[in-house]
Amino acid sequence: MKLEKCLTEKNVNQNMLNISYAVRGPILQRALHIERELEKGVKKPFRRVVRANIGDCHALGQPPVTFIRQVLALAACPALAASPDVPDDVKLRVRELLDDCTKGSVGAYSPSAGLTLVRRRVAQFLAARDGVPASPDDVYLGAGASDLIKALLGLFVQHVDGKPPAVMIPIPQYPLFSGTLSELGLRQANYYLDEEHDWALQLQELERSWREASQESHVRALVVINPGNPTGQVLTRDNMQEIIKFAYEHQLFILADEVYQENIISKPFHSFKKVMHEMGAPYSSMELASFVTCSKGWAAECGLRAGFMEAVRLQEGVRAALEAARAVAQCPSVLGQCALDCVMKPPVAGEPSYPRFSQEKRATLRALGERARTAHREFNSIPGYSCNIIDGSMFAFPRVEIPERAQRAAADAGLQPDEFYCLRLLEETGVCVVPGSGFGQRAGSFHFRSTILHPADEFQHMMDSVRRFHASFTRQYS
Amino acid sequence: MKLEKCLTEKNVNQNMLNISYAVRGPILQRALHIERELEKGVKKPFRRVVRANIGDCHALGQPPVTFIRQVLALAACPALAASPDVPDDVKLRVRELLDDCTKGSVGAYSPSAGLTLVRRRVAQFLAARDGVPASPDDVYLGAGASDLIKALLGLFVQHVDGKPPAVMIPIPQYPLFSGTLSELGLRQANYYLDEEHDWALQLQELERSWREASQESHVRALVVINPGNPTGQVLTRDNMQEIIKFAYEHQLFILADEVYQENIISKPFHSFKKVMHEMGAPYSSMELASFVTCSKGWAAECGLRAGFMEAVRLQEGVRAALEAARAVAQCPSVLGQCALDCVMKPPVAGEPSYPRFSQEKRATLRALGERARTAHREFNSIPGYSCNIIDGSMFAFPRVEIPERAQRAAADAGLQPDEFYCLRLLEETGVCVVPGSGFGQRAGSFHFRSTILHPADEFQHMMDSVRRFHASFTRQYS
Repeated sequence: MKLEKCLTEKNVNQNMLNISYAVRGPILQRALHIERELEKGVKKPFRRVVRANIGDCHALGQPPVTFIRQVLALAACPALAASPDVPDDVKLRVRELLDDCTKGSVGAYSPSAGLTLVRRRVAQFLAARDGVPASPDDVYLGAGASDLIKALLGLFVQHVDGKPPAVMIPIPQYPLFSGTLSELGLRQANYYLDEEHDWALQLQELERSWREASQESHVRALVVINPGNPTGQVLTRDNMQEIIKFAYEHQLFILADEVYQENIISKPFHSFKKVMHEMGAPYSSMELASFVTCSKGWAAECGLRAGFMEAVRLQEGVRAALEAARAVAQCPSVLGQCALDCVMKPPVAGEPSYPRFSQEKRATLRALGERARTAHREFNSIPGYSCNIIDGSMFAFPRVEIPERAQRAAADAGLQPDEFYCLRLLEETGVCVVPGSGFGQRAGSFHFRSTILHPADEFQHMMDSVRRFHASFTRQYS
Repeated sequence: MKLEKCLTEKNVNQNMLNISYAVRGPILQRALHIERELEKGVKKPFRRVVRANIGDCHALGQPPVTFIRQVLALAACPALAASPDVPDDVKLRVRELLDDCTKGSVGAYSPSAGLTLVRRRVAQFLAARDGVPASPDDVYLGAGASDLIKALLGLFVQHVDGKPPAVMIPIPQYPLFSGTLSELGLRQANYYLDEEHDWALQLQELERSWREASQESHVRALVVINPGNPTGQVLTRDNMQEIIKFAYEHQLFILADEVYQENIISKPFHSFKKVMHEMGAPYSSMELASFVTCSKGWAAECGLRAGFMEAVRLQEGVRAALEAARAVAQCPSVLGQCALDCVMKPPVAGEPSYPRFSQEKRATLRALGERARTAHREFNSIPGYSCNIIDGSMFAFPRVEIPERAQRAAADAGLQPDEFYCLRLLEETGVCVVPGSGFGQRAGSFHFRSTILHPADEFQHMMDSVRRFHASFTRQYS
């Protein structure tokens, strides 16, 4: 009797076969391989790989915020509080946090939705941000925003009136959404951002997308990423009002991915919650889920896996279902929750940690602003490139002209033209960026996403590499 | 126009409405309410709530292991390494871990499956445990075992030959399984453990369960919890061989929940991987997923959310699907991974941290053993109670006689008899345990699960309370 596998590509969850997450996809795998080759001394036309594929801030040189790290260290090991290097406000913060942990240990489970103290702090942060009341009961902590977005999208997995459910997402989008929709078996209804108008979100395009998707599915939710990822645009208040009205008319649940709200460069950020509130009835009664994370902003603690969702005006039964599912997973990392607490209530003027904190935060945000302006200028100065202004986020998403002959060469290699381009860029310069096809783009247009987080020197090295590569690539294929 | 909710109990994912997780269920909610009442000075027949509902070790007084906490503190804040209180082996461990983090920050993302170093350490731990080779490539780190069990079960959500998929789970079981199967829409095929024979896993019962479930579904996987939760039995090698043969014959994927493998009291633990290996072909070629966590054992760091799965001999396409889904979630908490590293490679004799570590570990395991013996003896000494021997885990699952009249009173109150019993126990004594119906039990038999982790005094107080309560309850209803 020959042993067959119990689980095969034929009988495994077919939704899971369809998941693609370009940010950690084949280009990154190849980059990791090249890094190992370089270590072994294999000759390459470059000396190091420049990873610009993922918004992994610390990995790109952004230093951790000292206040956060001191709080984490003492929360883990309170005995270290004796150290004279630890400021009093750190000690106080740790005492507050440990008072809210059962028996004062970060090793005890917290409530599933998070420590009571931290949820209260989140609500205070939200109320101060928006000038709109916020309740800790609407706040759910999670292992980063991804965890919570998946949990919320899971609620929509249900045929309605015999039709399969669909979720509207922008194109280009962050592939967490396409990947999660695939995994959950939810249909993806694309609406295209308007590249010619700084990636604006156009109402008529929302309507088109909804109309087309509604023919064969029941559109249930609308995802908006603001500030945009990978596109970096920040929505105006007027535009948000249009979007909210659109969602209201079609009874769509708005999922607002607002994780880059602290990465603001040139335009003010408004939360969907605030704009809904300002619009008054009936819009101020709409359901809404908004997502924030410690992995972005000035904290950028990706590895700690902490974030929260504010989900307002959920029906009680729906809330109960969500909470039951969260309870099964026990709780998010308690140390991650402690970091979130620091982000929600950072040191203020007069506290011992403030001067250092304020200097660290300013340096990080200043570097981000500089890099955004440099990226915009430099990409636009490369013949064949165009790049919209970067209002927020930590990415550039330039458009690249790829010659016809290169497109045919890509097809011969079984690749999308932009994949082919990015792979060649990697092989010839060591620069690792993610092809636009991983985020979605209008047919016939080609892009890539690059982080703009590297230190100035490294960033300039990357820009120079891209410029040189593009000239030689264009020569080769024209 | 009246605003209706987008998400209602009618159109929400119906699987999520069915999730029940008794460990954090209504009894706990009531206990939390009572705690708040006590704080406010409301009079009760007891002075404090004794939470015995969840294996939350630190919350029940088990102290954290100093070595782990020092490593975490320094990994978060390497500047503290200057402290003279930090032993050299802690500093060395932190250096090793940070060398494996991008740019030396626990705030950078790790690879989705976990840090390379930690996966290697896990493989070394497994190889040493079993005397069987283990590969880091088969090791997936996660946010506790729950996270990974859900990820693996997700692979089975697929009709096969037109039949809905089912998964066999023990009864009584840990409700992570029933809850996750509900959420994923997988059918639950129950096999009953044999209470009369120390919760043995009987082959003929496995066959019966499989046969019955196979009539209307395709049984795809077999969950075994060893050491048992809530039952505390440890499987013998002979029994495991029978189970493996059974799974082989019916082409079932074995999910081995082995999270209590370090909580061993009176019987040796064998891993499924080792027993499969010993059995040779064809059994040594079977697929298997085994789960281990930092939340249990002597570390018991529940709040850090760290654990791993070893998944062996997966088909390549299946492995790719699993890895794609994991990539979307980015990575588990890097500080959690650091804790796992300490658990996989604790201090050894000759290292500076060893004496303290060894004393801490011994004290924890000794207390567990004492409490297991006390629980067994005391429960069996209460008229109307019987309790099997506790070989491992951190729970007792005594059987309780509930008088007919009490069963009718429960029905009148719309409760299961054991829920009624546990709720009364809570209201009259402050002792919070989980009714057996939350885990499953043979019809007409009644149990509850209690942790056995409290300090000796508190544990004795709990046992005395239960004894007094049961006598008065029985008097009242007989």
